[in-house]
This record gives sequence, C-alpha cells and structure tokens, in this order.
Amino acid sequence: MIMKKLQFILLFLCLTFTSFINAQIPAGAKSPSTNIRENDYPFILPDLRVVFKVNAPEAKKVQIDLMKLYDMQKDASGNWTVTTEPQEPGFHYYSLVIDDVKVADPASKTFFGMGRMASGIEIPEAGADFYSIKNVPHGDIRNVSYFSKVTNSWRNLNIYTPPGYDENSNKKYPVLYIQHGGGEDESGWAVQGRTNIVLDNLIAEKKAEPMLVVIPNGNVTRPGENFTGYSEQAMQAFKEELLENIIPFVESKYKIKTDRENKALAGLSMGGGQSFYTGLRNTDIFANVGIFSSGLFGGIPQSGSSFDPEKIIPGILTDAESFNKKLDVFYISVGEQDQRIDATKKLIGVFKDKGLKVHFSSFPGGHEWQVWRKSLHDFAQKLFK
Amino acid sequence: MIMKKLQFILLFLCLTFTSFINAQIPAGAKSPSTNIRENDYPFILPDLRVVFKVNAPEAKKVQIDLMKLYDMQKDASGNWTVTTEPQEPGFHYYSLVIDDVKVADPASKTFFGMGRMASGIEIPEAGADFYSIKNVPHGDIRNVSYFSKVTNSWRNLNIYTPPGYDENSNKKYPVLYIQHGGGEDESGWAVQGRTNIVLDNLIAEKKAEPMLVVIPNGNVTRPGENFTGYSEQAMQAFKEELLENIIPFVESKYKIKTDRENKALAGLSMGGGQSFYTGLRNTDIFANVGIFSSGLFGGIPQSGSSFDPEKIIPGILTDAESFNKKLDVFYISVGEQDQRIDATKKLIGVFKDKGLKVHFSSFPGGHEWQVWRKSLHDFAQKLFK
Repeated sequence: MIMKKLQFILLFLCLTFTSFINAQIPAGAKSPSTNIRENDYPFILPDLRVVFKVNAPEAKKVQIDLMKLYDMQKDASGNWTVTTEPQEPGFHYYSLVIDDVKVADPASKTFFGMGRMASGIEIPEAGADFYSIKNVPHGDIRNVSYFSKVTNSWRNLNIYTPPGYDENSNKKYPVLYIQHGGGEDESGWAVQGRTNIVLDNLIAEKKAEPMLVVIPNGNVTRPGENFTGYSEQAMQAFKEELLENIIPFVESKYKIKTDRENKALAGLSMGGGQSFYTGLRNTDIFANVGIFSSGLFGGIPQSGSSFDPEKIIPGILTDAESFNKKLDVFYISVGEQDQRIDATKKLIGVFKDKGLKVHFSSFPGGHEWQVWRKSLHDFAQKLFK
Repeated sequence: MIMKKLQFILLFLCLTFTSFINAQIPAGAKSPSTNIRENDYPFILPDLRVVFKVNAPEAKKVQIDLMKLYDMQKDASGNWTVTTEPQEPGFHYYSLVIDDVKVADPASKTFFGMGRMASGIEIPEAGADFYSIKNVPHGDIRNVSYFSKVTNSWRNLNIYTPPGYDENSNKKYPVLYIQHGGGEDESGWAVQGRTNIVLDNLIAEKKAEPMLVVIPNGNVTRPGENFTGYSEQAMQAFKEELLENIIPFVESKYKIKTDRENKALAGLSMGGGQSFYTGLRNTDIFANVGIFSSGLFGGIPQSGSSFDPEKIIPGILTDAESFNKKLDVFYISVGEQDQRIDATKKLIGVFKDKGLKVHFSSFPGGHEWQVWRKSLHDFAQKLFK
C-alpha cells in the first residue's frame, strides 16, 4: 500500500518534471522557418535571442557559430544548450561546431554559402513582409541547363518568370540578370534572396514592372585555370559566360525584350564586382547596373590599397556624361554595419564630384542577405520605367 | 658548405614527401558529382571503394556511415581517413559521425532525406547513362507555390515541363504525379531522382511520350494532427491534398489533358503506399498506377503481420476484372536486395492468381535511388501509349 503510494508520488513527480522540461520552450518563442519541420530547437525568443540545443553526450566541446562563436553548456543527459545575444533580423548563415569541426546543424535547412552547404537561420523583422509569401499571383522559379563553352560543361541557372508569363503568350519582358556572392551559387538569390516572393509582391502592388530575373552561377573557371575574385582573368571568364553563353541561351528560350534599355545587371558582394566590371564596360548591352555591398571599392583585404574606377572603367570619371547618357539606372547599396561602407561612401562622393549620376542606398545590417533583399526590393522598383 | 648540402637534401626530401602525399589521390580515382566542387575527398577508386578524409584534430572519434558504420583512423596531423568496401552503384545518403553525432559532411552536397539535410554520394554505374545529362533538348524543373486547404498553409511543389512545352502553345500534355519516400520531400524526385534528365533522354529517344511530371510534397498533416505512414488518416490527408488542392492547381495553370487515361500516379516507398491507396481507390481519376519499393506489402516492422489488399481496395482480388478494365498500366517494382522483396513477390503471385493484370519489375539494389531511377525509367516508357 505504501509502495503503491510511493509509486504514485514518483509518477506524479516525473510528470511534473517532464512538464517543466517542456515548459522550457516558453510562450512567445517562435520556430524559425529555417528549422526542419519537427524540430523544437533552435527557437527564437521575443527579444530575438536564439536558444540552441544539441544532443552530443560524447563530444568534448560543442559550439554555435552565429555571427560570433558561442560555447554551449552540457547537462547530465548529454544535451548542450546555449542562448545567444539578440540577433539582427534577417537570414544568417551559421555553423554547429563539434570539437572544432564546423558542420551544418541537422536541425536546420542548408543553403549553399561559405563554399559549402551551410546552416541558415531566419530571424523575423517586425514590419518587413516584402519577402513573405502573400496571397497574390505568383511566378515560377525554373531550373534549367545550358552548355557553357567557357567551362566546357553543362551548367544550371535559375530563372524567375513573373505571374502571367505563360498566359501572355505574345508578351515579351525586360530582364534582370543578378549575381550571388563569393561562396554561393545560383541558388542564392532564388532561395536565400527570395527573389520570386519579392518580385511577386512588388508586381502585385504595381511597384515593379513584370520582368524575368535570370540567376546564374557566377563561379566561372576555364578548364585548368583557377582565377577567382576580382582578378581580370576571373572577370573576363564571367563576362564571356554571361554575354556569349547565358544571354544567348535565355534569349533563345524565353520571351525577352533584347534591347539594352530592357536589360539590367546586378549583384551582391563578388557579384557586385562582376556587375561593376561587366555592366559598366558594356553599357551598349546593359542600361541598368546595380552593385550591392561590393568589396571592390575597399574595406576588405581583397580590395587592395586604393580603388581607381577610371583604371577599370575608362572614362567613368573623366567622361561621366557619356555614362549618364547610357545608364538609365546606376545603383549602389551597402549595409550600414558593413566594413565596406566607408570606401563605398567615399566612391559615391568621387562619382558625384565628377558629375556621374548614381543612386546610393544604405540599409541597416552588415554584409548579409537582409541588406540584399532590401537592395533588390529597392532596385527593382527603379527598373524599366 | 656541408650545411648547404644538408639543407638541399632536406628540401629534396620534403618535396618528395609532399609529392608522395599528393600521389595518395591515385590515378584513376574519380571525384563524385556530389562533392562540393573544390574538394579532393571523398574520391572513388576504380573498384568503387570510397576514400574519405576529414580534418578533426580535436575529435575523439570520427566515423563515416555509408551503408554501414566505418571507424576512421587518425594521423599525426589530425586528419582522419577511411577506405570503405566497394559500393553499389547509384546515389546513397551518408553521414559524417563526430563523437556519435550524425551530421552532414561539409565536403558533399546535401539532399533532403532521412528527415534532414543529409550528405549524399553518387557512385557511377558503368553503362548506365540514362540519368546523365546529354546533348538533347531539355525541359525545366519549375518550383511553384500553392495554398493548401488541408494544411492551411502555402506549400511548394516541383513540376517538370518537357522540352517544347513553352513553344507548343496549343499542345496539352499527359501528367505523371510522383511521390517521394519517408523522410524526403518534393526535392527528392527532382534532385536525387533526376526526373528531368531521365525524361529528357527518354523523350529524345522517342521511348516516352512528352509528359509533365508533378512532384509534390507528400508530407501532409492537418493542423494539430500528426498521423503518418500507412495510417488511414495520413492516407486521407494525402488523398485530399492531391485531389482537392494539387490537381486543381496544376490543371488551372498548365496545359494538361485532364482525362483519366492521361493521368498517372506513382511513388517510392511511403509514396508507393500513397499511390496504392489513392491510385487504386480512384481509378476513375487515374488509369495508371506505379508502386516502387513499398513496405506496405510486408517485410518491414511498419508493415504489420499480413497484408490484405482487399481490405484497403475492395474488389481488387474478388473483382480483378473491373480493375483490369480501368487500369491501363499497373506497375510494381522493388530492389533485389530490398527486404521488402519477398512480401512484394508474394503479393504479385496473389494478384496473378486472381487474374489481376500487373507488371512486376525488380532491379539490382536495395531500398534506394538507383532502383527508383530505374523504376521511373521503366514505368515512364509504358505510359500514355
């Protein structure tokens, strides 16, 4: 009898304890859209701190690398937990680090960035729903293959077709070619960037012209070579890929207006550098150029000591008026906390001194996707009008 | 003088040693297509053994889980290596295991399977190029969003449109709806399955009719519920999603022939079970049903003790002739090394005894993607003729 009462009390205590454990996912906590569906962790607290939990009883050290490296604390059942500092809104790559090995966290979706399939976490931004899916007409993201004579291989690109593209069989559309950053690929703007949702919403609000958006893989190396970044050879390889393979391919397959006023070239970071080189050297092909968060201008080790735009784009300072005539939209943006901002603002000052028309926008944030989504949202509204 | 000679000898020895290290990636070794581009490891030897190397100086234990668990050996520089047994050809999910934590290997691409983003490795099969990209006309894979009244949320699906789809503006196409397995999603058939490449090649060879292939997310749960697998509730939820949301959506948006003779429903594993239930219960909607590697029939713990098809599909045994009249193609396949094969063959025997027309194919391999690619390749050639 006493034993039964004891068992009952123990059972009651166990159930209470279990409820207490479950209650550790507090009311108001949100599950990020980047979680694999069933996972409780990580979760986001109302003040945007993030709580991670990982089961790793045998590991010596477990950390989360999210904007900075956090040590996790191990409990008696082998679960490691940490609560981060409040996070900036937007999409952030992150890593789970087990005994100093950086890996993707099995709890989250992966995204191609940092040169590998990396974890990402989406921190909501209050009031920013321009990249949330809404009940408006939606376009498609199409993944297609083409043969590149530069890399001598089959390559894939993504292409956004706006709502109505299939139905309006005789209508031709303007096109934005948009490049990812270093360590990324053609999935960047399609997935992390939410290009289709940003454009669907802008088109529904009649703030952007219906357009196609071509999203290439900007990692272009000739067989046997390995030029990267801001080298002339890498820039040449990219230019050739875009002008001689990608553009002819999409123009043969899609209903596209082929004149320069209906073409735009933009990119982020390394892709911004590619747009600077290839766009501004080919204003007879592109009347619209956008450069988001480029390190080309300075502020990072790869930039070199001082940037002279006239060296890369002859005439851009000494004959700014000829560029003003050719470019309908020339747009530069950067994040306010991005180390590239000072060099970028300095260059804007130089351009304006020389009479070059350029639109400059800055957005809260560092070198990351929230700034690029906002840049696309801003830039797209200026195009083809 | 002696010191200089000594330095020269040491330098020579170092260079030789370095060459020896580099020579450890032997001639004839191949880099799998699933590697992130620049990575030397893993690589595949001519006899299909795979060599893995992971840098993890601080880890206590590092393993590779590829069809079985392999312990890796650590060297003095903190690199862990292992050479596996020869691998079966095809695509295999695998894991890197660090101190018993299963994660994705940063060296490889990730794929949604096993309920998370998991590593995969592609082992080539000599003579099997039906899923290799060729210089033939290519279709697109389109990723589109639709609103589900079953899950009360926006959902994505992939859809393959065959070459010529856009150009032939008045032509309508038959459609195959095809389901992934447990722990997978709508990317399964699109990425791991290479549906677009298999169909592009078959269409070019005139072995398959040009068709659309709709690739849904078969993980369908009503808000607040959690029925899964072969339960009636899970099957009902899937059926409703397919018949009341997905089919009306694609028929409103794409140029599709809507009669039953021009519809097929197929799936692998859990998706095969879904096709069995939803296809065979709705032969007024689907004239073609394909079931690849389903555990529904027996052979796995979830199957239950004995499978009675008449219980799920009344009349299938007692009135086989009515099914023969309705079904143009009824197709069942399984891998020869799949534990489900005995129960599957037993069911085929029962079906044939009762006069039910069914095509049975088996392929070398276990419960995996090479069998499903071959099943699709086989099944697609029978459809819509």
